[in-house]
Amino acid sequence: MCPVPDVFGEIDPPQRLLMGPGPVNAHPRVLRAMSADLLGQFDPEMTGYMNETMALYRGVFMTGNRWTFLVDGTARAGIEAALVSLVEPGATVLVVRAGRFGLLLQEIVERVGGRVETVDAEWGQVVSMEAIAEAARRVRPAVIACVHGDTSTTMAQPLDGLGAVAREVGALAYVDATATIGGMAVDTDGWGADVVTGGLQKCLGGPSGSAPITISDRAADFIFSRRHVEKGIATDDLDEGPGRRIGSNYFDLAMVMDYWGEKRLNHHTEATTMLYGARECARIMLEEGLETRFARHASAGRAITAGLRAMGLVVFGDDACRMTNVTGVWIPEGVNGEAIRRRMREDFEIEIGTAFGPLAGRIWRIGAMGYNARKHKVLITLGALEAVLRAEGFAVPAGAGVDAALEAWG
Amino acid sequence: MCPVPDVFGEIDPPQRLLMGPGPVNAHPRVLRAMSADLLGQFDPEMTGYMNETMALYRGVFMTGNRWTFLVDGTARAGIEAALVSLVEPGATVLVVRAGRFGLLLQEIVERVGGRVETVDAEWGQVVSMEAIAEAARRVRPAVIACVHGDTSTTMAQPLDGLGAVAREVGALAYVDATATIGGMAVDTDGWGADVVTGGLQKCLGGPSGSAPITISDRAADFIFSRRHVEKGIATDDLDEGPGRRIGSNYFDLAMVMDYWGEKRLNHHTEATTMLYGARECARIMLEEGLETRFARHASAGRAITAGLRAMGLVVFGDDACRMTNVTGVWIPEGVNGEAIRRRMREDFEIEIGTAFGPLAGRIWRIGAMGYNARKHKVLITLGALEAVLRAEGFAVPAGAGVDAALEAWG
Repeated sequence: MCPVPDVFGEIDPPQRLLMGPGPVNAHPRVLRAMSADLLGQFDPEMTGYMNETMALYRGVFMTGNRWTFLVDGTARAGIEAALVSLVEPGATVLVVRAGRFGLLLQEIVERVGGRVETVDAEWGQVVSMEAIAEAARRVRPAVIACVHGDTSTTMAQPLDGLGAVAREVGALAYVDATATIGGMAVDTDGWGADVVTGGLQKCLGGPSGSAPITISDRAADFIFSRRHVEKGIATDDLDEGPGRRIGSNYFDLAMVMDYWGEKRLNHHTEATTMLYGARECARIMLEEGLETRFARHASAGRAITAGLRAMGLVVFGDDACRMTNVTGVWIPEGVNGEAIRRRMREDFEIEIGTAFGPLAGRIWRIGAMGYNARKHKVLITLGALEAVLRAEGFAVPAGAGVDAALEAWG
Repeated sequence: MCPVPDVFGEIDPPQRLLMGPGPVNAHPRVLRAMSADLLGQFDPEMTGYMNETMALYRGVFMTGNRWTFLVDGTARAGIEAALVSLVEPGATVLVVRAGRFGLLLQEIVERVGGRVETVDAEWGQVVSMEAIAEAARRVRPAVIACVHGDTSTTMAQPLDGLGAVAREVGALAYVDATATIGGMAVDTDGWGADVVTGGLQKCLGGPSGSAPITISDRAADFIFSRRHVEKGIATDDLDEGPGRRIGSNYFDLAMVMDYWGEKRLNHHTEATTMLYGARECARIMLEEGLETRFARHASAGRAITAGLRAMGLVVFGDDACRMTNVTGVWIPEGVNGEAIRRRMREDFEIEIGTAFGPLAGRIWRIGAMGYNARKHKVLITLGALEAVLRAEGFAVPAGAGVDAALEAWG
């Protein structure tokens, strides 16, 4: 037997304020809900909680979709489950690319065997619906895939009219709303999106590890056409679909729906504690009210933008399509971005974000999401940034950022 | 905007004793650890906890493998991550099948494009290592895949010598240890297994939703030969491997290792709360000591088997290869298995398990796993089963089951 390693100490993280692009601090109610003990996966109380979670997420996704549930994994698991279930090998997918997460959609589509066509914008811009429509008419995709809020650029892609474009060309419309769900309106039915996925760790104020998903009836019909039942649990009354089997078992949404639906067909063992957390995230959101919650995030975004500008910094990207819950800001000439982030963390226990790809080392990303989209947290962050910039030798007008943010909060 | 649904009540599950094949009640320390607040995913304290978790799971997996970490999803996610990363399309995989989870391995291999050969035993038996070796020599697989404890049959597959067989034929050896990890010796290095995966929700006493995995250097070398870096985060110093790109992004273990390793390359957002839970599961296990813990599960299994037999029931499967942590028992002639399970739940708040496939409706499965592998819980369960059988009209010698279990506990 191998030597047993140290068991280390009890979990005891520092009390850090997470004002980056996510994950952010969880709402304490979510963590408390997650301390409830487990249930058997087909106990009536468990299936009752599953049904309640489905109902609650219809509210979160602003949809009447029957098929609204959780994928057990991080937000990225939800994206892959959607794409591997919607995209048959060889099918054409139109990917809207204007940042890292558009590239991720492309990457996943390629891995599951889809043929990618793209319609692009520079990082910091969005793609117009006219350009999406033009591309869709040209390439006749089976699926149109886009990202609502791409945290890599802090831009929110306008999606009004997406469903009409998709229907016109006979496509299904997929939206990754990981970074906006719970903070900006994710208007599934209004957009006419067929599948939308999210995560808990940003504006929903929970931990990463559960991916809410909603699926329209027409998308569900398509996915069920690819239904395949595991040999170990197959019975005579289960129909296989005529479509091509989905290239993943874990992410086979037909099987996952047969588990969440009335068939209650065993698939994975539901991640009960994450489900308790996801359920509480949704309860908190619906109690607050969607409009109030979106307005709170908008106030935070406005305050951060105003505060940064009053400090003499230059905000990144197009004002017209800014996400409300995360703001990019150029690192000033001569300032070491990582030194600032380290001082923020070490002196103030505040995390702000770095960036990816073409923006790595060039912008910081400051978020105010979920439980952290609150006035005092925004003000504290701006005040700390001012002190830290000064300590690193960059002159900032004293007090200006906090004052401007206070005024802009509204 | 859609009508907002009811927000329902606070989470408040019944205090139920889960004595089925898993999930089981979580250790309270695990749930408490999960209530710690979140950290940024590259904060030094977070990467420190990740490194500690890797070290702790080396102890759990009885291995010196550097690559020992968590896959963010349920146990089934760990299985799929292993197989999609190890199995190139067209590669031959020898699957050892003696229950539902052998069939699941086959299913997953087929979905990821592998060519399956099998070596089989009846449900309730295991496959001898000689038969595995003979089949391996015949089919020359790239991977040999097997299940250690298959809860569908309650049998534990002997795995001594697996690594030698795999090396002889140039294969990599994969073991699904979901149902035994933390309860029976999962002797990764002793077996010579290349990849072993597990889950928290059985003998480790945590919630479903995190899949510990360990990977030998030779398996890691193979997986890294398939390395592919996402466009959105690619930099010049990252090498692509010559092998075929893995058909999943989320389950691409090369990317997941580059996230857990020193490169700290962004992939998914680690499921922090599940990581806190997984870390605590391992701490509890290593504090107790592996031998003590395995002996505790063995006592529980012995006591359940003796108790059931003293009640006049017939235990399922081969005594020589019984799992210690879950026991199958034939439903007696004329007894309605589901009526018994319902009475157990409604009158005693105890869950025992039903069964799958050829055993559905024919056996119950009674587990004693992790925090529930304790004398009083076994005794309470047997006493309740006696009362419930009597209430359903099946004569049971009063007190005999509990007395025999007490004596057999040792």
